[in-house]
Amino acid sequence: MMDIYFDNSATTLIDSEVQKFMNDFSEKYFANPSAMHRLGYLVEEEVKSFSNYIAKELNCDAKEIIWTSGGSESNNLAISGYIDAHKKMGNKIITTKIEHSSVYNVFKKYEDIGLEVVYLDVDRTGHIDINDLQKNIDSNTILVSVMYINNEIGARQDIEQIGKVIKEANDKCAFHVDFVQGFTKYRVNVKKSKIDFLSVSSHKINGPKGAGFLYKNSSVRLTPLILGGEQQNGLRAGTLNTTGIAGTYFATKIAYESLEKNVEKLTSLRNYLIDRLEDVNKNFDIITVNTKKDDTFAPHIVSISFKGIRSEVMLHALEDKGIYVSAGSACSSHDKRISRTLKSIGLNDNEAESTIRVSFGKSNEIHEIDTFINVIKDLIPALSIRKK
Amino acid sequence: MMDIYFDNSATTLIDSEVQKFMNDFSEKYFANPSAMHRLGYLVEEEVKSFSNYIAKELNCDAKEIIWTSGGSESNNLAISGYIDAHKKMGNKIITTKIEHSSVYNVFKKYEDIGLEVVYLDVDRTGHIDINDLQKNIDSNTILVSVMYINNEIGARQDIEQIGKVIKEANDKCAFHVDFVQGFTKYRVNVKKSKIDFLSVSSHKINGPKGAGFLYKNSSVRLTPLILGGEQQNGLRAGTLNTTGIAGTYFATKIAYESLEKNVEKLTSLRNYLIDRLEDVNKNFDIITVNTKKDDTFAPHIVSISFKGIRSEVMLHALEDKGIYVSAGSACSSHDKRISRTLKSIGLNDNEAESTIRVSFGKSNEIHEIDTFINVIKDLIPALSIRKK
Repeated sequence: MMDIYFDNSATTLIDSEVQKFMNDFSEKYFANPSAMHRLGYLVEEEVKSFSNYIAKELNCDAKEIIWTSGGSESNNLAISGYIDAHKKMGNKIITTKIEHSSVYNVFKKYEDIGLEVVYLDVDRTGHIDINDLQKNIDSNTILVSVMYINNEIGARQDIEQIGKVIKEANDKCAFHVDFVQGFTKYRVNVKKSKIDFLSVSSHKINGPKGAGFLYKNSSVRLTPLILGGEQQNGLRAGTLNTTGIAGTYFATKIAYESLEKNVEKLTSLRNYLIDRLEDVNKNFDIITVNTKKDDTFAPHIVSISFKGIRSEVMLHALEDKGIYVSAGSACSSHDKRISRTLKSIGLNDNEAESTIRVSFGKSNEIHEIDTFINVIKDLIPALSIRKK
Repeated sequence: MMDIYFDNSATTLIDSEVQKFMNDFSEKYFANPSAMHRLGYLVEEEVKSFSNYIAKELNCDAKEIIWTSGGSESNNLAISGYIDAHKKMGNKIITTKIEHSSVYNVFKKYEDIGLEVVYLDVDRTGHIDINDLQKNIDSNTILVSVMYINNEIGARQDIEQIGKVIKEANDKCAFHVDFVQGFTKYRVNVKKSKIDFLSVSSHKINGPKGAGFLYKNSSVRLTPLILGGEQQNGLRAGTLNTTGIAGTYFATKIAYESLEKNVEKLTSLRNYLIDRLEDVNKNFDIITVNTKKDDTFAPHIVSISFKGIRSEVMLHALEDKGIYVSAGSACSSHDKRISRTLKSIGLNDNEAESTIRVSFGKSNEIHEIDTFINVIKDLIPALSIRKK
């Protein structure tokens, strides 16, 4: 049987076109863009054109794009960098209970050194209460960080409404959006949505690993995380990863050019899977789908709990059939703690530990879901029996 | 005329073999190494084998290799990470006046927040006085950071002696070496040289941009720079740039397999260039070579001052002839300040501003130096006249 890769929220296969673009680029434009000679200048111009493309899609200025090594660095840079530069303005910061660890752990760091941190609750579907956010923003609040798409269950926050509420409550409070799982699934207008920082990772969109960027509103200050040369206006030192930037640009371009078509396809995959799971459940009644078939959820992520079957057992049984999914706790074999997200939407420990994530990419097809469903139908009785 | 690239200390062209290795790797091993399924496990095993290879060459353990986005991040992580984890142990830190900005500016940051910082002088050849270092280390000193090879003039510090002196003076003081310009030019034994941190960049050794690593002695603690997932024992969060790691491994392997032969060739290029410059100088008497033909200097860097000819003028005149070098102030078109290194070896502002750097890579050949010398011979009178 052909392998079925349903773990696209962990990482994606790089597009062969993107790889080719990068290979050609790195051969032709290999010089250091900071070099004073023509070879350096030519690379710098290419990078500027890539920044321009991205900036235009986000409705910002090319100078507001900071190239980084990926989503985790972007999240750290935005949050640490903003707080360090604005400590005197206030000491309250707000995020949610379901953020990615590269946001959550930075908030924990500031909590440990004495900042007042609010971790907003989410409801059973993984969405924050906008009134709860509003109530918590005061004149002392300097930063709010909310992820657009939750990486484990796909819950989509109403970013535009959140931006509006933040700025109405305190127009000096900055707004950071972890856009890692949302980029190229949704078009975002950072100015309209009043976003000050937006984090993006390349390897989640069929681009290269080790690359990504942070949009930073030019009117807010930022303390750099990596000091050194004057690259990127001193906000991120280090020789630019020009090949990675080229790949990020090209992967973005490909994705944006057929964004609506891709999303339509992903949505139909998601909805088809959820429908089929409901069919299966008529016979077994052990499945809970934590993702809904509406636009408050991302098109590419489906979280599924199998009562009484531990996610690791299910994951390995599926991989024996050539199907690759993630355990509920997202993408780490090194972190065995119960998922914060799954607990926050009200799952108990047993339920959280019996949850897998299916995440689609643009290459997935309906027939792979049929295969998955057939395998699941066989596995449920087998794994349930094995347990008894 | 064929272009002559003499700016290999700024960056190098990626080896086509390395590119091929990376392309094959990223197609076959594209999964997230943190994923719990087999595809993730297979990638993780590959990364372990790459770490093992590097560790064996450095005489350390594979777990002591932290993969980063490059030299600047490695330098920042080592210095900030060590100081933040050891602030209670003492508040004195020592470095030199000629460090790369990704070291120097981190020391400046800690000076600004109240640590006692010693910036060691260097002599006319760019070497520190070991007695000066020894005198400065006291029980309050927690870190010494010294670059192996200076990126502007090629001065090589006696790292083994420095490590010995540090540990004899205070065995709790950590030793960081910026090895960016030295890696694959010198074999280093981190345990023998008593090095606790060693920074390496991939794009300087015909490997990929946006990749590198930090060796960290397992017996010292480190506060991570990028927080998030539990990758790399929690010391550097973010999905591993597995393709970049593969490229770093393969570029290192190629370089190590013919290290002595490469260095011999580079040394002969360096010595030949210095000899020819001395010949030219018999007619013009405006050239000072800041690099010497002995093993207290790296084999691949030659710093040359042309009295009365500004480095930018010389650089652009050379590029008109298809020859690419760097201005004395290393690799940044964004930083117009006078080079700290050139000032520290005693050059005045005029001399520092009239200095270029030639840096060789493995593809350079003797005949390119002949061409360079012929061009120089034509340019000197022309540029000197133009100045009058």
